[in-house]
Amino acid sequence: MGRRSTGDVPALVERARQGDPRSVARLISLVEDASPLLREVMAGLVAHAGHAQVVGITGPPGVGKSTSTSALVGVLRRQGRRVGVLAVDPSSPFSGGALLGDRVRMQEHALDPGVYIRSMASRGHLGGLSWATPQALRVLDAAGCDVVLVETVGVGQSEVEVAAMADTTLVLLAPGMGDGIQAAKAGILEVGDVFVVNKSDRDGAAQVRRELRSVVALSERAAGAWTPPIVMTSADRGEGVEEVAAAIGSHHEHLVASGELERRRRRRARDEIENLALTTLRQQWRGVHEHAALDDLADEVVHGRSDPYAAADRLLASLEAPR
Amino acid sequence: MGRRSTGDVPALVERARQGDPRSVARLISLVEDASPLLREVMAGLVAHAGHAQVVGITGPPGVGKSTSTSALVGVLRRQGRRVGVLAVDPSSPFSGGALLGDRVRMQEHALDPGVYIRSMASRGHLGGLSWATPQALRVLDAAGCDVVLVETVGVGQSEVEVAAMADTTLVLLAPGMGDGIQAAKAGILEVGDVFVVNKSDRDGAAQVRRELRSVVALSERAAGAWTPPIVMTSADRGEGVEEVAAAIGSHHEHLVASGELERRRRRRARDEIENLALTTLRQQWRGVHEHAALDDLADEVVHGRSDPYAAADRLLASLEAPR
Repeated sequence: MGRRSTGDVPALVERARQGDPRSVARLISLVEDASPLLREVMAGLVAHAGHAQVVGITGPPGVGKSTSTSALVGVLRRQGRRVGVLAVDPSSPFSGGALLGDRVRMQEHALDPGVYIRSMASRGHLGGLSWATPQALRVLDAAGCDVVLVETVGVGQSEVEVAAMADTTLVLLAPGMGDGIQAAKAGILEVGDVFVVNKSDRDGAAQVRRELRSVVALSERAAGAWTPPIVMTSADRGEGVEEVAAAIGSHHEHLVASGELERRRRRRARDEIENLALTTLRQQWRGVHEHAALDDLADEVVHGRSDPYAAADRLLASLEAPR
Repeated sequence: MGRRSTGDVPALVERARQGDPRSVARLISLVEDASPLLREVMAGLVAHAGHAQVVGITGPPGVGKSTSTSALVGVLRRQGRRVGVLAVDPSSPFSGGALLGDRVRMQEHALDPGVYIRSMASRGHLGGLSWATPQALRVLDAAGCDVVLVETVGVGQSEVEVAAMADTTLVLLAPGMGDGIQAAKAGILEVGDVFVVNKSDRDGAAQVRRELRSVVALSERAAGAWTPPIVMTSADRGEGVEEVAAAIGSHHEHLVASGELERRRRRRARDEIENLALTTLRQQWRGVHEHAALDDLADEVVHGRSDPYAAADRLLASLEAPR
């Protein structure tokens, strides 16, 4: 692998487009490594992306995200659709093609050539989740996936962040977790396009549905806007999972018909471009060889000789000067 | 208040420097509102800041952060030191001088003129926590606080973010929460300069201490580096809190003697300058009137006519052209 030269990128991209799993895996590794080859990779992929429906799967720990994701993959595969799964763990140092511990249920799909499963760590990434995820999504999209499921393992902000990258966001809850208000606080309920109450055979499932119904009823929506459905499931027994797939399909139709899909994708592209541009600037400012300007300015602020606003102005002014 | 003109800023800054609590409160409100007056405020304050020791207080919900903070304020006050408390809740829409519900214990200090207590919401802020907190810290610092305690109410990433702004980070744990591994996963243990096992009269406290000891023993440290002490407390009865204050003091001495204080503060200033500069750029790029460039570029990426790297390059190039 270490011997691959830049000249291999077009061939690698071509093999990934034809669905070769090793090439797809290699391209996602390039994303994880923030490889300089990514510019060339993305230039080769961008014209072939835009087909996949990106579905974010969020919810508090313990609601059965992994089981639900696996069951959903099963239903989508029986419909003949190609599926990508990206399990993003912003706090994990582990990554790669290996299946993480609690992802063991996904192994039933591990040998299916119509499914790509990938765990991705984003910790330590310059720009983190928001930098790496859109690029990994583009790889899976261009490789011919009809649906890409993005599951976050993290909590709080990272879930909201991933939702911003999805066309459709599934929010999973379960009874007996006391999570109604908790989840609302973290902003998870606000981003849900489809709500799933998993473990619906347990006590309290009806209560969770009632709470969700009032949240949905109380939230402000424009005329003609999408009303998030609430689906009851027992993912470990496969119950209700076809309804989840149907709800995802309906939401996609709504997104297309209303023009919202285009708007969401434009917003996503805007975020991605902005993040790449800001990352480039950050690298320049922190680069030891190119600009030591930021260090000098920090020194002045620490010793009270400059305030941070004036320092920021000078940092920006250095961009506008010829380099 | 609404009638205040820009000309009042120097007077306001001067009153805050002399410790007038209303002026301090007003300046922190300007930070929360991202007021355009902040440039002038920070220019006036920067030469008077740099004295306070900033202590971050983090830990999972339920360990007794609020009680410990309050008890620590009591000890520091008995030592004659002026104390600021900044309670940061990244998920809360509430803010202002009002004491939040679970901060009710802090009321014993509410009438003490040597203590400033402030709850701050950062949700919705452009740049969030990392934008607002350093500026609020500078206000409390310049107002003459010897120690500023920063307590996060949030979870996960926000706690690590606040730790990055502190000179000394206190990590609180408690028995019976099953949080040993959880906390480690969120990266909290890595940022601890002082560990506190609160509720140390409960079963399992010794076990938490043992786990922490192995974490400390296993972590790699350079020769002469600080070894985080582990302090057992029962904050609600005031037990062990003087030892916490002593550990904070020792860590401060270590920071000064090793030159690490200067390094941490320089890094903090660098982050702050960078965040201000990037926020300015983001505002420009998203500004409807100034640059619609980002929207056009996003369109090209969505339709596969440009890849995100090329688009980011063009966005940056637009900065270097004369405006």
